[in-house]
Amino acid sequence: MSKQGGDQGTGKLGVWLIGASGGLATTMIVGARMIARGMAGSTGLLTETEAFAGIPLRPFDALVFGGHDIRPGSVLDAALEMHRDTGAFSVAGLEALRADLEAVDAEIRSGTILNCGATIEGLASVELRTEQRSLAEIVAALRADLAGFRQRHGLDRLVVINLASTEPPVAPMPEHEGIAGLRTLVAADRRDALRASSLYTLAALEEGAAFINFTPSNAALLPGHVELAMERGLPVMGNDGKTGETLVKSALAPMFKYRNLRVMTWQGYNILGDRDGQVLADERNKASKIATKDSVLGNILGYQPHTKVSIDYVPSLGDMKTAWDFIHFQGFLDFKMSLQFTWQGCDAILAAPIVLDMLRLADLASARGEAGLMRQLASFFKRPLGVDEQGLHAQFHGLTDYIAGLRRP
Amino acid sequence: MSKQGGDQGTGKLGVWLIGASGGLATTMIVGARMIARGMAGSTGLLTETEAFAGIPLRPFDALVFGGHDIRPGSVLDAALEMHRDTGAFSVAGLEALRADLEAVDAEIRSGTILNCGATIEGLASVELRTEQRSLAEIVAALRADLAGFRQRHGLDRLVVINLASTEPPVAPMPEHEGIAGLRTLVAADRRDALRASSLYTLAALEEGAAFINFTPSNAALLPGHVELAMERGLPVMGNDGKTGETLVKSALAPMFKYRNLRVMTWQGYNILGDRDGQVLADERNKASKIATKDSVLGNILGYQPHTKVSIDYVPSLGDMKTAWDFIHFQGFLDFKMSLQFTWQGCDAILAAPIVLDMLRLADLASARGEAGLMRQLASFFKRPLGVDEQGLHAQFHGLTDYIAGLRRP
Amino acid sequence: MSKQGGDQGTGKLGVWLIGASGGLATTMIVGARMIARGMAGSTGLLTETEAFAGIPLRPFDALVFGGHDIRPGSVLDAALEMHRDTGAFSVAGLEALRADLEAVDAEIRSGTILNCGATIEGLASVELRTEQRSLAEIVAALRADLAGFRQRHGLDRLVVINLASTEPPVAPMPEHEGIAGLRTLVAADRRDALRASSLYTLAALEEGAAFINFTPSNAALLPGHVELAMERGLPVMGNDGKTGETLVKSALAPMFKYRNLRVMTWQGYNILGDRDGQVLADERNKASKIATKDSVLGNILGYQPHTKVSIDYVPSLGDMKTAWDFIHFQGFLDFKMSLQFTWQGCDAILAAPIVLDMLRLADLASARGEAGLMRQLASFFKRPLGVDEQGLHAQFHGLTDYIAGLRRP
Amino acid sequence: MSKQGGDQGTGKLGVWLIGASGGLATTMIVGARMIARGMAGSTGLLTETEAFAGIPLRPFDALVFGGHDIRPGSVLDAALEMHRDTGAFSVAGLEALRADLEAVDAEIRSGTILNCGATIEGLASVELRTEQRSLAEIVAALRADLAGFRQRHGLDRLVVINLASTEPPVAPMPEHEGIAGLRTLVAADRRDALRASSLYTLAALEEGAAFINFTPSNAALLPGHVELAMERGLPVMGNDGKTGETLVKSALAPMFKYRNLRVMTWQGYNILGDRDGQVLADERNKASKIATKDSVLGNILGYQPHTKVSIDYVPSLGDMKTAWDFIHFQGFLDFKMSLQFTWQGCDAILAAPIVLDMLRLADLASARGEAGLMRQLASFFKRPLGVDEQGLHAQFHGLTDYIAGLRRP
Repeated sequence: MSKQGGDQGTGKLGVWLIGASGGLATTMIVGARMIARGMAGSTGLLTETEAFAGIPLRPFDALVFGGHDIRPGSVLDAALEMHRDTGAFSVAGLEALRADLEAVDAEIRSGTILNCGATIEGLASVELRTEQRSLAEIVAALRADLAGFRQRHGLDRLVVINLASTEPPVAPMPEHEGIAGLRTLVAADRRDALRASSLYTLAALEEGAAFINFTPSNAALLPGHVELAMERGLPVMGNDGKTGETLVKSALAPMFKYRNLRVMTWQGYNILGDRDGQVLADERNKASKIATKDSVLGNILGYQPHTKVSIDYVPSLGDMKTAWDFIHFQGFLDFKMSLQFTWQGCDAILAAPIVLDMLRLADLASARGEAGLMRQLASFFKRPLGVDEQGLHAQFHGLTDYIAGLRRP
Repeated sequence: MSKQGGDQGTGKLGVWLIGASGGLATTMIVGARMIARGMAGSTGLLTETEAFAGIPLRPFDALVFGGHDIRPGSVLDAALEMHRDTGAFSVAGLEALRADLEAVDAEIRSGTILNCGATIEGLASVELRTEQRSLAEIVAALRADLAGFRQRHGLDRLVVINLASTEPPVAPMPEHEGIAGLRTLVAADRRDALRASSLYTLAALEEGAAFINFTPSNAALLPGHVELAMERGLPVMGNDGKTGETLVKSALAPMFKYRNLRVMTWQGYNILGDRDGQVLADERNKASKIATKDSVLGNILGYQPHTKVSIDYVPSLGDMKTAWDFIHFQGFLDFKMSLQFTWQGCDAILAAPIVLDMLRLADLASARGEAGLMRQLASFFKRPLGVDEQGLHAQFHGLTDYIAGLRRP
Repeated sequence: MSKQGGDQGTGKLGVWLIGASGGLATTMIVGARMIARGMAGSTGLLTETEAFAGIPLRPFDALVFGGHDIRPGSVLDAALEMHRDTGAFSVAGLEALRADLEAVDAEIRSGTILNCGATIEGLASVELRTEQRSLAEIVAALRADLAGFRQRHGLDRLVVINLASTEPPVAPMPEHEGIAGLRTLVAADRRDALRASSLYTLAALEEGAAFINFTPSNAALLPGHVELAMERGLPVMGNDGKTGETLVKSALAPMFKYRNLRVMTWQGYNILGDRDGQVLADERNKASKIATKDSVLGNILGYQPHTKVSIDYVPSLGDMKTAWDFIHFQGFLDFKMSLQFTWQGCDAILAAPIVLDMLRLADLASARGEAGLMRQLASFFKRPLGVDEQGLHAQFHGLTDYIAGLRRP
Repeated sequence: MSKQGGDQGTGKLGVWLIGASGGLATTMIVGARMIARGMAGSTGLLTETEAFAGIPLRPFDALVFGGHDIRPGSVLDAALEMHRDTGAFSVAGLEALRADLEAVDAEIRSGTILNCGATIEGLASVELRTEQRSLAEIVAALRADLAGFRQRHGLDRLVVINLASTEPPVAPMPEHEGIAGLRTLVAADRRDALRASSLYTLAALEEGAAFINFTPSNAALLPGHVELAMERGLPVMGNDGKTGETLVKSALAPMFKYRNLRVMTWQGYNILGDRDGQVLADERNKASKIATKDSVLGNILGYQPHTKVSIDYVPSLGDMKTAWDFIHFQGFLDFKMSLQFTWQGCDAILAAPIVLDMLRLADLASARGEAGLMRQLASFFKRPLGVDEQGLHAQFHGLTDYIAGLRRP
């Protein structure tokens, strides 16, 4: 049962998902509706634990879902496909939610694939692949989608979350550093200097929505976006949700430091088979992902061990991401030892609850008038913006300290 | 190079090891001498990291080693055996230390096997197996060994560390609760109510030595011993050094809590082949070990998952302890996932530096007049006395907070 | 699509399962009906591969199922439970088979728990736990069940397969060595000298059925039973289906021999959570299982390495048996190396097709008038009766040679 | 103790190693000398097992070693480096062999790096990097080295073995198909059409030596070389010794076939840190290796699963090659299951005895006048020339059948 309370209790919160037809969005939507209807418990949701008791978080039955995607599809069909693939959900449960899910389908709009690379373009609808709109026109269309959503449902507040497939990294430009620069690029229709995610974020902030970048795409939350968020009094955070191998890495790596054991090598081999895996099989898109995964160890250990993170596409796995990590380390008298682990997790199942946690916390931050980076969410990200600390435990205490601060009079 | 400083800088610290001929004691002694002679670096030693800069810790060349054992043997021979088994040390390095190690051999005395179980007795010398001394006579003899050691070397201070093989657990008795009770048991020659380790600790404290119980044997540091330490102004700590599977467990388990992932099962299978493994093949002795290993998860998670910890004797492994842990957990919508790890570490190599760390910190605590349980050492133990917290990270911060406190004026 | 041909093509084959309500029987029955109705392919079925082309094997739509069990339950309910547990089957598929499965339910009779140990008795219906019948009465009742089944369906032939939970091992007695002895024990109502499985087999053979013991229970196929099979011209085989860790072991162990690598240690840790796991948590029942698993290595390697096979009950796993094996071996110049593997398989899914393969091959052997041990089935068993060879590859060639023999004019 | 017998018993066999200063050659030489001197046993040597009893194989004390390399270095130094890295050999043992090893050093000559790629060239001596000889001059020089070796030691017979680092693959040309073509290429000084290994083999065969290509380099044993071997009555074999992950793969893959389990995916991740690993970090050289590793599964299974074999250079591992393989397969009713294994082996230790086995068997084949491909050695190679069968067990029976054939009158 979800908690009630505070000023969030009475109205509705709009949750707008970029990548609304994907496995993660599907899992979030199905899960949130199951919880709202009392069909599922709260495993995986941190905001439903004792640590958050008494904090006024939006209840699950007050969430209204919509979003953008680049290919047609219904939430129910996507959920049935996940069921066949991984065994997640029950068919009977999905049937009971049919009307709820169809209502979400009615709120999914066509987005943009601007400068996303050939692999993502190959997944998109014909209309998007052949579109001729200017950047300014695209932003205006995205804004109109958000405004319509807000109006149709009489929403209290709006949170936009980027769950789209990983774009190739964008090379930094001076114009990215401030909101004025971003606006210049849009006005000049500089299609090479931005990517789809840059436009989604602009539209979200201009429409007064909080924004979370759950992907590694660095174009989604540029310094200029953060400047705009500060101006508008909106909270934002990114990049790249920490759900699997990197989560384990950030929990384990401090152990070596606490014992002055020297990590010589940390190899990480990831295999997965969902649409994300397919996009990551494109070397250009993969570069974004590897970059955020690889930055954790040097930060925690204080030196850079030999390290490699690889991601391979293995269709038979579907969404069951499997990772093997091999850690070679030296102990006393330079003796060599090793630790290896195999992680077998369902990506969407791991990510969905932390996205739900974060949107509730973004809603809370908005209600409190907090603007700019939500550093308290660092433990949820592979590369938390504005936070140097990469150790999971220290990051987690950043969140519990924040919550404790809310309880003080 | 080791640090200098404070009142420890000038004199010698006696280090008396119960189990002085075992692999761990051997590794400690060889390692400390190599560091003192500049033949080895400080990997694995926390007290040599930046976090301890400026803290007045005893330098390695001021440590003098001696100890008790229950079977004859030289440190050099034990080190050569470990070299053959695991590849630790170089033969040339050991040769260079020959005189140092022979000096330690001259300070090893015969101890006691009182009530240690048949397996430990089987390892002991004939003299010990057939001895007729009363408990009071044994304590007196142990004390005389310590006093002689202190006198021969003009020691500043003495730390006694229990590294002996695991004894069977002793059943709690009212007499264990206070020092008066312990003294009554000794006077009445109640051989069933105490074990060898109880007598070693008594002798140590009566002789004014700090004491550390690195083993799971619960008879080594009874409440009565702690009372005596308080009376005499001596620091003590135990139980059971945390070096392998449990170390990883205490680093990883909090991750599940930070994500509200429900651990259904945590199975841990340990295999090892050294003398400790041989003793643990005896079910009675193993009971002590399993008890301390098994208490970690419920404490960290807040509920008790299905769990099993097994230890099997595999002679071919020698001291290369290998552990496979399988963790089965539920995420969002009760979806089942798993994490497994394989740990391959050399037990003595992992334990030696933390024993060296702790004896330096016990020396420091003694110098500062701190008496009773050294709770700041919790991160080094599987079952830290007087400390509820089992998460590695929180325990580690207990130590860094203690050190930070020393720096304040 | 299944193959047609030979004298088996026209009539019906009765398949009588001891343990008819268990997960394995359920999977067999559901699978066979799905194949018969064209709803499933032939993965896992060796008899449907090219190697068996042209061999006159009974088609799947000619199989009629019935059996004994010791607790009430329907096949459909058991299948739905497996679906929830492991994701096997689809709910829609099971619904489509509802009538087929109800027809099987109508052919399930109450069996016997004679001398099966407390854990199995605890699972049984009240009637069985309190029954007063003599051994002769039980055998007569079991025979009547088989005869009725044969008659109701006008069966061509009957195969009985023991899939019941593992019994404790029975100690060898002179009376077990011949059929006369077994009959004496039954007549004298010697309840301590036989177990339930001994009676099922007697009944099967007396009724002219071929018999397969898929369990480790050594009471199921005693020398006396084999003598009776020879007399009656009936084929039989056992013991203990080879489906998981032991299958891998028997495939891998020869590799070490082919390279003269010396296996020092082979540890195998099995964890599983189904009803079999629950019964094996009872040390007496487990003894049977461990015995058959442990005999493989010495046979293949020609010497006995240090070895341990353990089985632990882990409820969260359900039928997803997981095994970790650690193999420590010496190569050239006695250098130590290791291989470890983790097997994650669904027991019923692995076992069902080989039981189906074997019953078709038993039917074939019966048609050909082959009596006594079916040594050609050795590759399917952990302890194949009458066959010394334990290497998987050599065993498999025993089967392909047999099939090749059938093709010769 | 090695066996005596036959016409090999009296004289000396010359063993000429291409890559004589590498870890594998070092291990072979040290091991052979230790066995000859009774300092080591025969673990890892198949030719010393019961299966070869009575076969007239050259005793170890009759082997005389020499070879080519491309960088200066002594066998003793290389052995001491391996000792430091992996713990192989004892320092005392190596000291006892000092004179033997220095005698080998005196028989090591500078070879050629023709067209081997930048990474191998970077390892070579300055002289080789700047040499100006024509192909014909190089072949002549190599031949002279072999002739001198044969003469100095009065050798009975000569076997040349290619153990050099992996070259990039050579693209097939019509001239490679026959010995006439190869000679044309040499005469025309076509440096792009051949690689170093092509010249070593030519020299060996022209000098009447048997030849074994233990590397993946496809230029070492071209069809033209085999034609020349047939003409000269010399036995040859290749390619690429099967020592680690592929060995396990070829032992395990048949298991899936024997149960009609469908392998969907077989991913193999190899990490290693020796000079071979360094050369394989060059993508061009790696291409040869991946090609031979990847061809095994399709052959055994009869269909091509999704598969990837990667090799990464991890310096901290030295020669301790570690591989993680993940096998995803479908069983009955298309249920998905998995098997994963981790192999931790010392490459040189695994390879040395099979090279020793093969040179003895090549010597035997030479004595018997067998010319051309030694198909009986298929089980030792990743891509055995002239043999389709990739299953380890069937390949091994090819060898035992050959030996059995020798015993028949």
